[in-house]
Parts: sequence; C-alpha cells; structure tokens
Amino acid sequence: MANVAILGSGGFAKEVAELARLNGHQVVSCYSVAAGAFETLHRGYLAEMQRDRNQFEAVVLGIGATDRRSLSIRRGLVDWLLENRFACPAVVSPSAVCAEGVVLGPGVVVAHGAILGVDSRIDAFSVCNSGSMIGHDARVGSNVVVAPGAFLGGNVSVGQNSLIGPLSKVLQGITLGEDTLVGVGCLALRDLSAGQTIWPRFDQAR
Amino acid sequence: MANVAILGSGGFAKEVAELARLNGHQVVSCYSVAAGAFETLHRGYLAEMQRDRNQFEAVVLGIGATDRRSLSIRRGLVDWLLENRFACPAVVSPSAVCAEGVVLGPGVVVAHGAILGVDSRIDAFSVCNSGSMIGHDARVGSNVVVAPGAFLGGNVSVGQNSLIGPLSKVLQGITLGEDTLVGVGCLALRDLSAGQTIWPRFDQAR
Amino acid sequence: MANVAILGSGGFAKEVAELARLNGHQVVSCYSVAAGAFETLHRGYLAEMQRDRNQFEAVVLGIGATDRRSLSIRRGLVDWLLENRFACPAVVSPSAVCAEGVVLGPGVVVAHGAILGVDSRIDAFSVCNSGSMIGHDARVGSNVVVAPGAFLGGNVSVGQNSLIGPLSKVLQGITLGEDTLVGVGCLALRDLSAGQTIWPRFDQAR
Repeated sequence: MANVAILGSGGFAKEVAELARLNGHQVVSCYSVAAGAFETLHRGYLAEMQRDRNQFEAVVLGIGATDRRSLSIRRGLVDWLLENRFACPAVVSPSAVCAEGVVLGPGVVVAHGAILGVDSRIDAFSVCNSGSMIGHDARVGSNVVVAPGAFLGGNVSVGQNSLIGPLSKVLQGITLGEDTLVGVGCLALRDLSAGQTIWPRFDQAR
Repeated sequence: MANVAILGSGGFAKEVAELARLNGHQVVSCYSVAAGAFETLHRGYLAEMQRDRNQFEAVVLGIGATDRRSLSIRRGLVDWLLENRFACPAVVSPSAVCAEGVVLGPGVVVAHGAILGVDSRIDAFSVCNSGSMIGHDARVGSNVVVAPGAFLGGNVSVGQNSLIGPLSKVLQGITLGEDTLVGVGCLALRDLSAGQTIWPRFDQAR
Repeated sequence: MANVAILGSGGFAKEVAELARLNGHQVVSCYSVAAGAFETLHRGYLAEMQRDRNQFEAVVLGIGATDRRSLSIRRGLVDWLLENRFACPAVVSPSAVCAEGVVLGPGVVVAHGAILGVDSRIDAFSVCNSGSMIGHDARVGSNVVVAPGAFLGGNVSVGQNSLIGPLSKVLQGITLGEDTLVGVGCLALRDLSAGQTIWPRFDQAR
C-alpha cells in the first residue's frame, strides 16, 4: 500500500494503474510525454518525475511493448528507473494465479487471468499479460513482455528484452536467447539464439 | 435478480442459463423451436413468448453462432427482442474480469474466464465467450460473437454481426468491418472491410 | 481431505501436489524412479508404494504427458493404480470453473484457470491443464491430456489415451478416436480416427 506514480499514459498505463489500485496502492501522479488517459494526474516527464520524487513512495511502469522499437524504449525506461533507484513494486491481479514458489522481480506486472506455474521466476519489469500461461520452473529474464494468452511450457527460459506474442507457443524446455521475438500466434519448437525472430504467416482474407 | 425466460434450448442456452442463475436470476421458462435441454421449462417459441410476457421480467438470449448462417438467425432474434421491447439484462460470469470503465450493452453475455480490458465497450447482445481476451479501449459492435480464447488487442474495433473464431487473434488497433468473420485460430494483421472472411489453413492429419 | 501419496516427482508432480493441498489434502509421501522435487518425501517406486499403502489414504498421479511415449507410460501407471485399487480423488484448482453438470472421473486433474463447460464429462485420470477450455457436453475419455490453453468445442468427443496440445483447437462436434494426437497449436476441423496425428507446421526463425 503506497502512493505510486505511474510512468506512461496510454492504454497499458490504464491497465497497470488498475492493477496498482487492486493491490491497495493509490495512483497519485502520472509522468509521460503526453497526458493521455491521465489528464488530471499528469505532471510532466522524466525530469519532473525526478523533481517530484518525494511526493510518491513508488513507481509503476505503464509502458508496454508490441515490437522491437517499443521494447527498446521500454528497456531505456527500465534502466532509468533502476539507475535512479526508484522503488518499483510488482503488481499482480487478484484474478491471476501465482503457484507455489513463484518469484517476481521488482516492477513485474501480472495481469488478469495470467497463470504462473510452480517455481517459475519472472525477472525485473517483465510483463505476464492477460491470460498468459507460464509453465513450472520457467525462467523469464528482465524486460520481457509475454503478451495475452501466450504459452510458455515447463522449464522454458527466455532471455531479457524479448517479446512473446499474443497466443504464441513456446514448447517445454525451449531456450530463447536475449532480444528474441516470437510473433503473434507463432510456435517456437526449437531454441532461438539471441536476436532471432519468428514471424507469423499471413492468413488470407477473401 | 429477476424471473427470466431463455430464448433457445441448446448447449449455449444451458451455459447462459447457468450465468443467469449465477447473476441471481431465476430461469422460469424456455422458448425455442424444440425443448432441447429445457424439457420441463419449454413453453413454445416466439408467439408463446409474446403471449407469456407477463410471466417473466426479462429475457436472456441463449443462441450462439458458429458460422454466417447461425449469426444471421441470431441477428433476427436480436431484432425481434429489441422491436418487442423485452428487457434483456447482460449476464456476466463471476469468474470473468471486467476491468475499470467497461461498458456492456443489453443482452451481452460474458462467459467464464473472459477478460475485458479497461474502457472496452461491448454492444448489445454480443458474446465474449469463455477465456476470450478483449483489449483496452476495444469497441465491439452488436451481435458479435467472440469465441472462446479469442484475443482482441487494445483499440481493436469490430463491426456488428461479426464472428471472431476460437483462439483467433486480432492485433492491436485493427478495425474489422461489419459482417466480418475471422476463422478459428486465424490472425487478423490488417483491417478487414465489411463482409470479409479470414479462413484457416487445414492442418494435415496423418 | 486425506493423507495422499503422489506418484511422480517432476514439474507436473509439483503442480498436482499444489492442487492436492489446495483441495485440503496433505501430501505425505512421493513414489517415483527418482526423488526429483520431493527429496524429503521420496520413499521409492511402485513396490514401495504397495508396501506403504497403509500409510496414506489416497494417491494422486503426478505424471503428465507431452508425446506418445510419455502418454503410454502414463497409461501403464493408470492401469497399475486401478488394478491395485488405490483410491484416487480428482483434484481441482479453486481457480478453475466446473460448470453445472460437469462429471469428473477418479484421478482427474483440473488445473488453474481451466474452464469445463456445462454437462461436460472427463473420464478417469485425464488432465485439463491450465487455461484449457472444454465445451458444453464434451466427452473426454480416460488418460487424455488436454494441454494448457487448448480448446475443445461443444459436444466434442475425445477417445482415451489422446493428447490435445497446448493452444490447439478442436471444433464443436468433432470426434477424435482413441490414441489421437493433436499437436501444439493445431486445428482439428474434421474427425480423426484412432491413432491419427495432426502435427504443426514449423514457423521459420530468421
């Protein structure tokens, strides 16, 4: 239970703000390049967040990622938060399931309906979005976005700064390197080395 | 909490009847071309529903859709209910998540485990079936069936009388016109104009 | 509420042990070829389980399956438990939804977030894993593993000893014979006869 500032002001920020409130926090201010959905709470961007840091106890990161570009921007903000030693609690939906032995790093977001298997570990500032399924003993590095409905099998390992697309599938035991991208609905049947991408085939419209 | 009549008598009607009961309603009668699963409650079809309308306070529509034909039949029944000014409450599973700012039209069905994102809007008589995931700020027109496990990204817009198949994926920001059909498991990466269909490839059995 | 022994010691065994505890049971011992995750509780394998059978009241099967080989091993253990008349309660996650009329056989596992539709029936020792969606009136034979996020439509029938892969889709009304395998993410649009397999296409990495 803390007064928190949110960094970001778009749709994902609205979702994270709700999770923060459901975790008993109070969202007291918003910092972003634009006011977006937080008109009355918007106070500026990073310089102002530094200036105001005595006015809140913790920060939640309300920036998602849907491609390499946004993931890279997100990494920059994560590093800025870490360098400046802001307190960043994990926020977890009451409708998510964190099984026994789950370990969440600072700044992790576990959204509605996500299921984190026994002894899985999610590192700093990663996102397990709505309805995602993380297998037992999985290891998810920092700044990884697991999109809605995605499936990571048991013992999967995902390197930092990776993006696992909506309803994509990573088979049990697979290792994905850093900076990997599994596109929407795609299937990772074999290991991926750092920087690799799996991209979806196009379904024909008619 | 009302005495409700159900229109329809198949498997989907059983599911909707359960949701109605979980919402505190009592299902007192069933109207359909056949008695189906509602033998003791079956009273006839539309003429009898009109005749009996003083015997219940509201109606829930227990007809789903899995193709264009059933979706068109469903549209006809929706229009009949609207023209005849039956009260049609939304029914929402207690295990579904409706985030902050979600707006549900009359007759909407939100099934078990569905997750409706912040500020999404579901118009009259649409269905968010089991485990479906609706992104923040999404707009879903009337008589749209979002099948189990389907994913609509943030800011997606779906025109009325559309069918989003099981475990299909509509990327964030995509606009689907009226009468569109996204087949089971398919991926909508680009906008669809009215009437368009995306159909799945066949996985080979061997 | 019983003192239960768990058969198996890997990741799935950890998940089933948690479900057993959430159902009020106490896991008092583990039998497996290796101690695995249950070091202090491990007592040996099948001979020792027979020997110790007065020390627990029931058994939960903590062996999953991800291919034909592991499914066959699982069948052997199921038959051994049945022949030796061990009591094997179903275990059901408190976050799963079992709709009205659902019937679960002995030894069934219903994991976190699974949704079992109205009047569906799951036979002995089958698994509905995390986030799987079973349609109304579906019939699932014994020793079937429905993997995470898989979808079975209404009135689907699955023969015993089958494997339904993660996020795969079986359309409403489809009948799958015994010993069928639907690969990860695959789509079953037509009936499969006994022993048939649907295997996924490979998404290209680049």
